[in-house]
Amino acid sequence: MDKIKVGILGSTGLVGQRYVSMLSSHPWFEVAAVSASSASVGKSYREAAKWVLDKDMPERESEIRIVGAKPTAMKAEGIGLVFSALPSEVAKAVELEMAKAGLAVVADTSAHRMDQHVPLIIPEVNARHLIALRGQRKNGKGFIVTGPNCTTIGLAMSLKPIHSEFGLRRVLVSTMQALSGAGFYGVPSMAIIDNLIPYIKNEEEKIAQELLKILGDYKGSFSFAKIKVGASCHRVGVLDGHTEAVFLETVKNASPEGVKECMRRFEGEPQKLKLPSAPFPPVVVREEPDRPQPRLDRLSGAPERAKGMATVVGRVRAESALDNGIKYVVLSHNTIRGAAGNAILIAELLKAKELV
Amino acid sequence: MDKIKVGILGSTGLVGQRYVSMLSSHPWFEVAAVSASSASVGKSYREAAKWVLDKDMPERESEIRIVGAKPTAMKAEGIGLVFSALPSEVAKAVELEMAKAGLAVVADTSAHRMDQHVPLIIPEVNARHLIALRGQRKNGKGFIVTGPNCTTIGLAMSLKPIHSEFGLRRVLVSTMQALSGAGFYGVPSMAIIDNLIPYIKNEEEKIAQELLKILGDYKGSFSFAKIKVGASCHRVGVLDGHTEAVFLETVKNASPEGVKECMRRFEGEPQKLKLPSAPFPPVVVREEPDRPQPRLDRLSGAPERAKGMATVVGRVRAESALDNGIKYVVLSHNTIRGAAGNAILIAELLKAKELV
Amino acid sequence: MDKIKVGILGSTGLVGQRYVSMLSSHPWFEVAAVSASSASVGKSYREAAKWVLDKDMPERESEIRIVGAKPTAMKAEGIGLVFSALPSEVAKAVELEMAKAGLAVVADTSAHRMDQHVPLIIPEVNARHLIALRGQRKNGKGFIVTGPNCTTIGLAMSLKPIHSEFGLRRVLVSTMQALSGAGFYGVPSMAIIDNLIPYIKNEEEKIAQELLKILGDYKGSFSFAKIKVGASCHRVGVLDGHTEAVFLETVKNASPEGVKECMRRFEGEPQKLKLPSAPFPPVVVREEPDRPQPRLDRLSGAPERAKGMATVVGRVRAESALDNGIKYVVLSHNTIRGAAGNAILIAELLKAKELV
Amino acid sequence: MDKIKVGILGSTGLVGQRYVSMLSSHPWFEVAAVSASSASVGKSYREAAKWVLDKDMPERESEIRIVGAKPTAMKAEGIGLVFSALPSEVAKAVELEMAKAGLAVVADTSAHRMDQHVPLIIPEVNARHLIALRGQRKNGKGFIVTGPNCTTIGLAMSLKPIHSEFGLRRVLVSTMQALSGAGFYGVPSMAIIDNLIPYIKNEEEKIAQELLKILGDYKGSFSFAKIKVGASCHRVGVLDGHTEAVFLETVKNASPEGVKECMRRFEGEPQKLKLPSAPFPPVVVREEPDRPQPRLDRLSGAPERAKGMATVVGRVRAESALDNGIKYVVLSHNTIRGAAGNAILIAELLKAKELV
Repeated sequence: MDKIKVGILGSTGLVGQRYVSMLSSHPWFEVAAVSASSASVGKSYREAAKWVLDKDMPERESEIRIVGAKPTAMKAEGIGLVFSALPSEVAKAVELEMAKAGLAVVADTSAHRMDQHVPLIIPEVNARHLIALRGQRKNGKGFIVTGPNCTTIGLAMSLKPIHSEFGLRRVLVSTMQALSGAGFYGVPSMAIIDNLIPYIKNEEEKIAQELLKILGDYKGSFSFAKIKVGASCHRVGVLDGHTEAVFLETVKNASPEGVKECMRRFEGEPQKLKLPSAPFPPVVVREEPDRPQPRLDRLSGAPERAKGMATVVGRVRAESALDNGIKYVVLSHNTIRGAAGNAILIAELLKAKELV
Repeated sequence: MDKIKVGILGSTGLVGQRYVSMLSSHPWFEVAAVSASSASVGKSYREAAKWVLDKDMPERESEIRIVGAKPTAMKAEGIGLVFSALPSEVAKAVELEMAKAGLAVVADTSAHRMDQHVPLIIPEVNARHLIALRGQRKNGKGFIVTGPNCTTIGLAMSLKPIHSEFGLRRVLVSTMQALSGAGFYGVPSMAIIDNLIPYIKNEEEKIAQELLKILGDYKGSFSFAKIKVGASCHRVGVLDGHTEAVFLETVKNASPEGVKECMRRFEGEPQKLKLPSAPFPPVVVREEPDRPQPRLDRLSGAPERAKGMATVVGRVRAESALDNGIKYVVLSHNTIRGAAGNAILIAELLKAKELV
Repeated sequence: MDKIKVGILGSTGLVGQRYVSMLSSHPWFEVAAVSASSASVGKSYREAAKWVLDKDMPERESEIRIVGAKPTAMKAEGIGLVFSALPSEVAKAVELEMAKAGLAVVADTSAHRMDQHVPLIIPEVNARHLIALRGQRKNGKGFIVTGPNCTTIGLAMSLKPIHSEFGLRRVLVSTMQALSGAGFYGVPSMAIIDNLIPYIKNEEEKIAQELLKILGDYKGSFSFAKIKVGASCHRVGVLDGHTEAVFLETVKNASPEGVKECMRRFEGEPQKLKLPSAPFPPVVVREEPDRPQPRLDRLSGAPERAKGMATVVGRVRAESALDNGIKYVVLSHNTIRGAAGNAILIAELLKAKELV
Repeated sequence: MDKIKVGILGSTGLVGQRYVSMLSSHPWFEVAAVSASSASVGKSYREAAKWVLDKDMPERESEIRIVGAKPTAMKAEGIGLVFSALPSEVAKAVELEMAKAGLAVVADTSAHRMDQHVPLIIPEVNARHLIALRGQRKNGKGFIVTGPNCTTIGLAMSLKPIHSEFGLRRVLVSTMQALSGAGFYGVPSMAIIDNLIPYIKNEEEKIAQELLKILGDYKGSFSFAKIKVGASCHRVGVLDGHTEAVFLETVKNASPEGVKECMRRFEGEPQKLKLPSAPFPPVVVREEPDRPQPRLDRLSGAPERAKGMATVVGRVRAESALDNGIKYVVLSHNTIRGAAGNAILIAELLKAKELV
């Protein structure tokens, strides 16, 4: 089988680098174009990107020439699908332009997440929302699919089985988020060593909104889940891996054992379709009293290609301060599952469903 | 005025060092005896203590000889009041022995916190609980007063004005606790760099229990406050200063402005009595979106002697996921206000009320 | 005595903030103007500066309006002396313009450090180099005095007494430098947590050049000291305080005890003149095997105003791999003694010598 | 081919865990016994070891029962070779006892490193020293082979090609060592966050001694290399990977290019014999100005099994302060190449040379 040629928009940033790294050995996709800001156009990827991952830059991709984020540049390389890790100030317009030109856009940017007919996909959780693409495709062949904010993904992955089994009434989450969530240059070392920052701009609003869209329905338009959601977001001195303390109320009474069991049983379309980047199981439930820990557990996920794709849950216990209360801790790798990895899994799903 | 001679039990650990440092220039108290484990008895404090504070060991105290934790050793120095920072395995028996021998014991250990007739005091919050000492003193002149767990103190300081003004129905708290809370040798660097640990043994239980005793009443015996309290406790790579994300429901509807205002107006006995270590104001409310931060705010508190004694609150906002919901972030220095400083303030209160 | 009005050029950066903080309670100087980039002109200092020090912004200075870095703006406020913490790309021209307009410029920037007739001053080490100002003042009343790179200062302070007593032949230094040396935004947290960076641009060259000028002579022009100097510079995850491992060869044989003794005896003009920010002693020699440590020792220096102004030396021992070899570890606070504090001490020296 | 059964002495500590992890998939060796302190004897490895690596504990090994560190226990399992990661207080006696009982002991402990007839081996550097085993085996079949201190290994690997090509006259090294070098519980987080410790007990002495033995000769007895070696050792807040700044003088004049070239050409017995854990190349020379960095480069080494086995050198440059002076930065993974990995490579060498 010939590989599908893909482009990466915003390829030199931290998430762009994750795309390059994860796609370099992908069985279905092959990077055919990488875009960056105009100052870098014409340089090789090696020259343009200040590489910051601990895994070395892949050889083949290092020699690709940077192009501008233009549909023509993508089409010139025979590309039908682009991943967008564009900076937020340009994402909105460029992604739209790509879709209008007939390209499939898989974006982990926030620009179009809440748009009408734009599905906000975690493949295990709401693959069926892809049906919304019909709403978009009325206007042509291209479309935009988005992945959620990095903080929402682990939360939604862990909540989905509970919601299906017991119903969710109320969710409160307090996050301890990794530095890479702000990009490589986002948090100065002087700001975070021996410190934490109890604030991440717009993050609390995103979690509440996105979660309800993801757990909601699409019937010609999106209807949101009826769950009360509140968040408090904090940055801590961890390189990768968002940890979240979750308190929740279920509709039907749920025991900690019942919650753990439904999480362990949980699987979604990626597992059923055996997608290349699907983790088995998608939710890992640990029994130790002091796990998950970001440094030890952020690369959870089997097989090898799915490392960093699993959501890890621990400390599931009853919360007597809430009615039908449960609390637990959830961890998710924010630049793998929370960004590039989730988008790649979306692309695999699109392919398996013959939408690209 | 002659200074009151005091003893420090468990003087060489991290909290013991805070006592030595804070008492070295105290206007009312003077360290006359320091105890440590038997291996150190007879050595000078300088020889016995591996000093770890950034402020240098005070000269006078450095030359005091270590004694055993025996009432006779304290009385031999003319001591009537001892501070206990004893290790938990010996605290229970030794503190009791001291009290039976007629000494006033101010403990920030957990051994007797939940005992009958033993007040659990944050001077600004429940000074009136000192009346419970009458229950103890039936049996002699000595008594035990305790201070709460370091995590409970900042939480209770911030909740007290809300509870007085609006009534508390439900409190959920997610903590991000400093390393010093586990003692100098408590958390290995290998365990916490680029990591966090979502578990602190017994901490969640302590918070719930202690908070209800502190906010409760004493009328011949303690009755506990009727508030639903739940906690999730986590250790992060911060040297000093516990940060807590608080979600709560009030009985009477409260706006964020109303909450901030009642916090700012709040004062307690230490402020009324102008105790030497009382912070003015006891609760500092900040308006910046990204404060409090432990490194920047943990030493809040005026005047100079009260640095680290103030509780700092920020990000007060409505929480729509709860009924009459409010959320905020609170910070408190865990080895100053959360341990040695709170105990010293208790001792100042005892002195002002002529209980020592 | 009326205080001398001073200006701060580049007042909103990390070093600028140190100036504002240290000068706010200075007995001789008073901040009368603060400059920043044109976008901030007209704003209050509070609005313009994103304050990052743990000590709060001083009230009086917070209300000063930002002006442009123009001599007229300084003179309009009655200022005769300006401190420069300007970004390197503008420092060269602006400092020169200030001097030409008759202002005394005390700069801790690198722009003019190696210029002819521009003294590069550590007040304890080479106060006598101020005589070079005569060379500059031929052309008018203004002049430029510079302070060395933050890494050079602690090194030179510790070497000076050895050079005077035993003669230096060869110095090799390996540095472990703090993050604040690169400015608040200089080192991303992602770059340094669980990591170090074995490179600081131009730093090794600066150390060698500057040290030889400082330890050299001025007789109408500067002649450099004849010492072989080599450096290897590294950034580590420490907030403040540069630590340096020094290996050296002396001309006359020196024992570790002899070296420690001459360091302890060492004093300079600031001590003789009892300047307000002079540390007593200027070089603190510690005997513990594991000191100096940046977090514990960086604020060394008495009296209170001189905290962070002392150089701390430890682990002085013989180095058998060199002829007449000695090695030790030296620590110096890089934004206090290494920048703002050294410049303020220079200004005090200028005042005491009636050069301003 | 049947695998050779091996035992691990001191299997539950940090280095012991590295052995278990690295040997779990070894093509030649199979863990047949693991020892730990008497309190753990009889427990499964899973129960006895508090696992701290980010790679999960291997299944097969997790079920092995802990035995005491006795030759009989090893022989009962058909073991002829043991790896020792014993605590220093017991290593000396136990390793000797094992050898006397006829076992081959490969130790990365310091107990016997400097003993007569005990080779101190880095397989690439001094494989020929294995001939010293003849001196030991006079007394029986067993013997002890040791690997050097973790700090010595990277240094010696980088120096060996220079010494062979140009001759070394003088070496000065300033280290920035990782936390894991002190064991998982060795450095408290309170001691190292926002800090460094300029002292590691006995380390400077070990480097000097061991290096000269490794670079020396064996002709019936060891004669030491005639090089002047001096060290200054420091602990920094890095999890894994010792970084060292090296200054040296060569006998024959060497250019930086010449040094890099001889390092790149360097290979040793492990490469010639194609041992399973041999890195190709053994010394990686990087050209970027800011490398090696521990977090990015500590797992260097190809193929997959050799990750963490390569020594990484960067910033090779002339040092004008020394005669024929060169300086560079070297990085080596201290618990892989610096401990378990080096010992496993020694064992592979013993096997390839039919000494076990």
